[in-house]
Amino acid sequence: MTPGPTPVPPEVLLAQAQPMIHHRTPKFSEILAKASEDLKYIFSTKNDVLTFACSGTGVMESAVVNLFSAGDKVIVCSNGKFGQRFDQLAAAYGLNAISLEYDWDTVVEPADIARELKANPDIKGVLVVQSETSTGVLNDVKAIGEIVKDHQAVLVVDSITGVGAVELRTDDWHLDVVMTGSQKGLMLPPGLACVSVSDKAWAAVEKSTLPKFYFSWTKGRKALAKSTTPFTPPVSLIIGLGEALTMMREEGLEDIIKRHSKLALATRLGAEAMGLKLFAPANGRGSAVTPVWVPENIDGKELVKKMSAKYGITIAGGQEHLAGKIFRIGHLGYFDQFDILTTLAGLEMCLTEMGYGFEAGSGVRAAEEVFMGLK
Amino acid sequence: MTPGPTPVPPEVLLAQAQPMIHHRTPKFSEILAKASEDLKYIFSTKNDVLTFACSGTGVMESAVVNLFSAGDKVIVCSNGKFGQRFDQLAAAYGLNAISLEYDWDTVVEPADIARELKANPDIKGVLVVQSETSTGVLNDVKAIGEIVKDHQAVLVVDSITGVGAVELRTDDWHLDVVMTGSQKGLMLPPGLACVSVSDKAWAAVEKSTLPKFYFSWTKGRKALAKSTTPFTPPVSLIIGLGEALTMMREEGLEDIIKRHSKLALATRLGAEAMGLKLFAPANGRGSAVTPVWVPENIDGKELVKKMSAKYGITIAGGQEHLAGKIFRIGHLGYFDQFDILTTLAGLEMCLTEMGYGFEAGSGVRAAEEVFMGLK
Repeated sequence: MTPGPTPVPPEVLLAQAQPMIHHRTPKFSEILAKASEDLKYIFSTKNDVLTFACSGTGVMESAVVNLFSAGDKVIVCSNGKFGQRFDQLAAAYGLNAISLEYDWDTVVEPADIARELKANPDIKGVLVVQSETSTGVLNDVKAIGEIVKDHQAVLVVDSITGVGAVELRTDDWHLDVVMTGSQKGLMLPPGLACVSVSDKAWAAVEKSTLPKFYFSWTKGRKALAKSTTPFTPPVSLIIGLGEALTMMREEGLEDIIKRHSKLALATRLGAEAMGLKLFAPANGRGSAVTPVWVPENIDGKELVKKMSAKYGITIAGGQEHLAGKIFRIGHLGYFDQFDILTTLAGLEMCLTEMGYGFEAGSGVRAAEEVFMGLK
Repeated sequence: MTPGPTPVPPEVLLAQAQPMIHHRTPKFSEILAKASEDLKYIFSTKNDVLTFACSGTGVMESAVVNLFSAGDKVIVCSNGKFGQRFDQLAAAYGLNAISLEYDWDTVVEPADIARELKANPDIKGVLVVQSETSTGVLNDVKAIGEIVKDHQAVLVVDSITGVGAVELRTDDWHLDVVMTGSQKGLMLPPGLACVSVSDKAWAAVEKSTLPKFYFSWTKGRKALAKSTTPFTPPVSLIIGLGEALTMMREEGLEDIIKRHSKLALATRLGAEAMGLKLFAPANGRGSAVTPVWVPENIDGKELVKKMSAKYGITIAGGQEHLAGKIFRIGHLGYFDQFDILTTLAGLEMCLTEMGYGFEAGSGVRAAEEVFMGLK
């Protein structure tokens, strides 16, 4: 019950356990081509979606090195650990970053981006996280897309815990670059990351002079046109991706998003019924992960440990300055109602044993009401 | 029967098919720590061995960006496609490369490196491939290590198809940086790559100014000291790595190398008995892959296709200017004598059907003699 790595369906685990095949074969090309088409469906885009053997950070770095040149002015929006990572990447590659920093329990303000774009017509890119894994806060990338679309800047969206969990309309919302990692909504082990690239972004790629090789989108695009990859792809993960995407197509994107909304609502109402306080602001609650304040006089790190050691439920603690202060229940990917009910029940037992005063059963009851369609 | 991806043992496939675990847990840290120790054994080194989610090219790039600065003078030795890749990487990152280029059917001459080092005391690195996957040619990195060890230059060895197949003594031979990929001698799917880094190389890392983030060895080393990784690792591949390394420890490194030598010898003598000509020179024959000239009047691409389509045996063709001119039989990783005998029998049938004149059975007989210990 963490925001990644998320559980992998048995069908996917077994697909990956098939005997190895060579990647320069018609069979592998067919799998890759189909997966790439299915990714477009999941990303709601007509743009090419490239895949890389790397973690989410790798594909974030690929955006920086493919789109920009040293000294380029960019806006980096940061209201959590992964917004900060964009800042670190911009610094590592010598970009001239205007950092819009926000408290971690607030959303990125689209109006601030509009103001900076107006004040700095030479801005080349806007980097923002849609769903902040570190806090569960959801930023309004639709509103941001509406602002950036008429500017020369390329809009780069880390949707690593967004894709397959929350609404994301890459083309309709004018999102030039959208990224995800395999170990999130795609229900795969970590080790694979994907990125969609718009025509506007490809034009930026043409001008970029930062050095790159392994992460070159141009190499990736050329190879994908021939249903292959520039370098040896992670064959078993791509085969797993094919299987996971088939499952996602069967469920349907709209129903997947609805299921996630329901899981998130049940988790939120369950936590609130137990007297717990939600961390994310009312205007920034995503469906990937629900962050909750640890109640006063309860040791947050101990709570996470106890959930795992005594009840076998892995939830996540807070990161950075929120360590011990919040806990996070992930529900993106291969989850259903009973995962949430189980987790809330485990949480009720842990908190009762740790001396937190509340009516046991209240959290589970509130979640049941959501799943019965009463709320 | 290609030089990668190589077959993955069922034990490893199933280890990877276990339910996903989180990477920030004591259980995962234990697996990572054990695998890192076992990698030192396989690399014959006391140096730290870092792992990255990427292909072999990614880890080659990591060596360039961690060790050097733009304008640094390096020697790049190239007698095949992967030597060329070092040249391309050096160019992408603005290194000042002295390219020692050799015909693909010859070895790198250590004396040439000695000459260049003497003429250019400011050389910062020597980049060389031990086992050229593209041609099967084995370069004498032991002799090169003896030359580079007293110079300030760091010796960088691509042993992507060398590790676990041919003799490799990282520390004894003064190899500062040694790399491999998972889909080779380590018997895993692709998607993971490893690199060992000597103290001399760490000193170079301190001075490097090329931009890096995802591939930062410094971040990797800091995390490894705490039995973790800087970014989300490819959990299933690391679990598979742990299983594969346990199997390799059980067989023992010396016996693994002996097995590969025998497989290679049987393949070579089998091919020669069929009247075929070996591509690799007598002083550069490795045990990872055996390249063979396609006989005159035989269509090399057709041969590779027929082996696969009619007999279900995947061998590799030649790359670049050798496409259609050579074929390559891989035998690194999870292979035994009957894989070679099967392949030679398939080759005999294909060549007979394609009109090549030779005594059918002669190739298999020669290989049997090797396996019986008669040759």
